Amino acid sequence: MKRLMNVVETMLDESLDGFAAAHSDIVELGSERKFVRRRTVSQGKVALISGGGSGHEPLHAGFVGLGMLDAACPGQVFTSPTPDQMVAAIEAVDTGAGVLLIVKNYEGDVMNFEMAAELAAASDRRVETVVTNDDVAVPKSTWSTGRRGVAGTLVVEKIVGAAAEQAMGLEDLRDLGRRVNERTRSFGVALSPCTVPAAGSPTFELAPDEMEIGVGIHGEPGRRRTKLGSADAIAEEMLSAILGDLPPPSGNKCLLLINGFGGTPLMELYLMVNAARRILGDRGIMVSRHLTGSLVTSLDMAGCSITITLLDDRLTRLWDAPVKTASLSW
Amino acid sequence: MKRLMNVVETMLDESLDGFAAAHSDIVELGSERKFVRRRTVSQGKVALISGGGSGHEPLHAGFVGLGMLDAACPGQVFTSPTPDQMVAAIEAVDTGAGVLLIVKNYEGDVMNFEMAAELAAASDRRVETVVTNDDVAVPKSTWSTGRRGVAGTLVVEKIVGAAAEQAMGLEDLRDLGRRVNERTRSFGVALSPCTVPAAGSPTFELAPDEMEIGVGIHGEPGRRRTKLGSADAIAEEMLSAILGDLPPPSGNKCLLLINGFGGTPLMELYLMVNAARRILGDRGIMVSRHLTGSLVTSLDMAGCSITITLLDDRLTRLWDAPVKTASLSW
Repeated sequence: MKRLMNVVETMLDESLDGFAAAHSDIVELGSERKFVRRRTVSQGKVALISGGGSGHEPLHAGFVGLGMLDAACPGQVFTSPTPDQMVAAIEAVDTGAGVLLIVKNYEGDVMNFEMAAELAAASDRRVETVVTNDDVAVPKSTWSTGRRGVAGTLVVEKIVGAAAEQAMGLEDLRDLGRRVNERTRSFGVALSPCTVPAAGSPTFELAPDEMEIGVGIHGEPGRRRTKLGSADAIAEEMLSAILGDLPPPSGNKCLLLINGFGGTPLMELYLMVNAARRILGDRGIMVSRHLTGSLVTSLDMAGCSITITLLDDRLTRLWDAPVKTASLSW
Repeated sequence: MKRLMNVVETMLDESLDGFAAAHSDIVELGSERKFVRRRTVSQGKVALISGGGSGHEPLHAGFVGLGMLDAACPGQVFTSPTPDQMVAAIEAVDTGAGVLLIVKNYEGDVMNFEMAAELAAASDRRVETVVTNDDVAVPKSTWSTGRRGVAGTLVVEKIVGAAAEQAMGLEDLRDLGRRVNERTRSFGVALSPCTVPAAGSPTFELAPDEMEIGVGIHGEPGRRRTKLGSADAIAEEMLSAILGDLPPPSGNKCLLLINGFGGTPLMELYLMVNAARRILGDRGIMVSRHLTGSLVTSLDMAGCSITITLLDDRLTRLWDAPVKTASLSW
C-alpha cells in the first residue's frame, strides 16, 4: 500500500485540517474535529446533518454548505462516527427549527445516529431521520441490515438541502428525503479493490481479468464475480437491475449520476455516461439532469456506480437550486 | 489493464459524446469531434483555445465555458491533436477579436499549434500563443524541449479566461498569460504508473516501496526514483524545488494548487494541503487561495503535484472572477 501520509494515526486529522483550511470561506471544524460545519448557519432553517466513515470523500464534508448540509461527522476510515460527534454537531447547528439526520443504511451509522437522536430529543431538540438505502445490488450485506445506502445519498442531500433553504419544515423535509430515496436506485461495479490505510492490505482480491458486480462502497461483496465485460454490457446489467427495481415512473425524466469510486479516470466515467444514456433512451427514459465524477468513493477503488433518480418538475427545480459546497457548486 | 470501455478505437469518441451530453448546457462538439466548444461565444471577445493529448481530464475540455476556454482540442490519449483540429476550432470560435492559444510545452503540441497559427494567420486571423512550462522537475524531458507544461496551465487558463471576459485585448492577454506562467511553478510525484489503453501495459514500473520524484503527467521520468517517504518529507522536497526556482515575490501571497494525478484519494490530497500550508507558513508565505482536486491527471496514476502561483491583487481578482465550466465553477 502506498499512501501520501505521515502516520496512520493522524491521517484523518491532518486531512480534515487541510480541508478546513482550503475551504475556510465555507466551513469550519468543530472542537476536537468532531464535525465539519458551515461557517454560517441560517437562523430558523432546519439543520441537515450527515456523516459516516471516512474514505468516501468528498461525501459528506465536501457537501457542507449553502444548499446542502449544515454539518457532517467524519468517522475513521470505513468506521461510523460516534454519537458524541453527532450530538456535538446537532448542538452546533440547530437554531431551534429542528434537525434532519441523513444516514446511510449501515449498522454502525444507523445505531449511532439513533442514539444521538435520542440524546438530542432528551434535551428537547426536534430530530428526524432519513435512512438512505438506494443500492439494489444485494438485499443485505456484511455491513447492513437491508440494502446499503450509497451514492444516492448525495441526491437526497442535494434535494432536501435545497428545500431546507426554502424554509420547508422538519417533517416535510423528512418526507421529501424519504420520497427522493424511494425514487433513487444505485448499482456499483469494482475493477480493483481498495486498501484501508490502517489495514495495509486490499479489502478483497480480484484477478487481473475479473470484476465484482454489485460491489459496495467499502469493497463489500456484491452479486458475483465475473470476467471483465465491455462497458456497454456492464452498463446494461447495472441499469437492468436499477430499472427493474424502481417504482413505475409517473413521467419519463431522470437524473443520471455516474459516480467514480476513486481510481477510475474521468474519461471512462464519461464513456459510461454515453453508454447509460443510450440504454435509457432505448427504454424511453430521458436523462434530463446529469452528474458525473468521483463523488462517493471507496478510497482508490477502481470502478463506478450508476444512480438513477426519477424526477418530476418539483424535484428538478430543487436539484437545480443553487449549491455552494467544496465539491458541488452551481 | 482494466478499463471501463468497449474497444480502444472508439474510447475517446464515446467519452467525448458522453461529456458533451452531460454538459450540453455549456458545451457542444465540433464536427467530427475535432474540438469541444462553448455553446455560445461572445462577439468581440478574444477566443481562448487550448488542447493536447487526452488522458489528462478534466484538462482541457472540462475547462471550456464562461470565464475560461472557448474551445479545447482533444488528441488521442497522450497524443497531440492535429493542426486540422486546431484550425477548425479557431474558425468556430474566433469572432474577429483574435485567438489566444494556450499550449503546454510538449514538442507535438507546440509544433501542431504553431502550424495551426500559421494557417490561421494566412487567412488573416490574429493569433497569439502562450506556451506554459511550469514544471521545475527537469530542464527537459523525453517529450519536451525545455520544461514541461503541467498543472499550472489551468491557472493560466483561469486567469487569462477571466481577463478575456472583461474585454482585454489579444496582445494584453498574451502578456498576462506569459506573466502568470512566469509566476507559476509545479512539481509532481508518482506512487504508481498509469496505463495507456492502446498500449495495455504500464508506462513505467515502480517497486511496491518506491516513488518517482519529479514525474511528468505522462508518467515521464523525473529527477530520481526513491523509497516512498512521509507526506511531510515529500511536500518539503516538492516545495523546495518550486520556491527555489520562483522569482522573488513582490508580496507574500500565493495560490496553492494540490492536484491529484487520478488514482489518489481526496483524503490524501487534503493531507498534502495541510503539509504544504505548514511548510509555506514557516517560510513566511501565505496561501491566500486554494484549489484541490484531480484536475490535471495522468489517467489512473497515483500521486500528486503541487503548483504555486505568486498572486498580487489583480491576479487574485481575476482568479476569483466567475467561472462556469464542467469541472470548475464558482
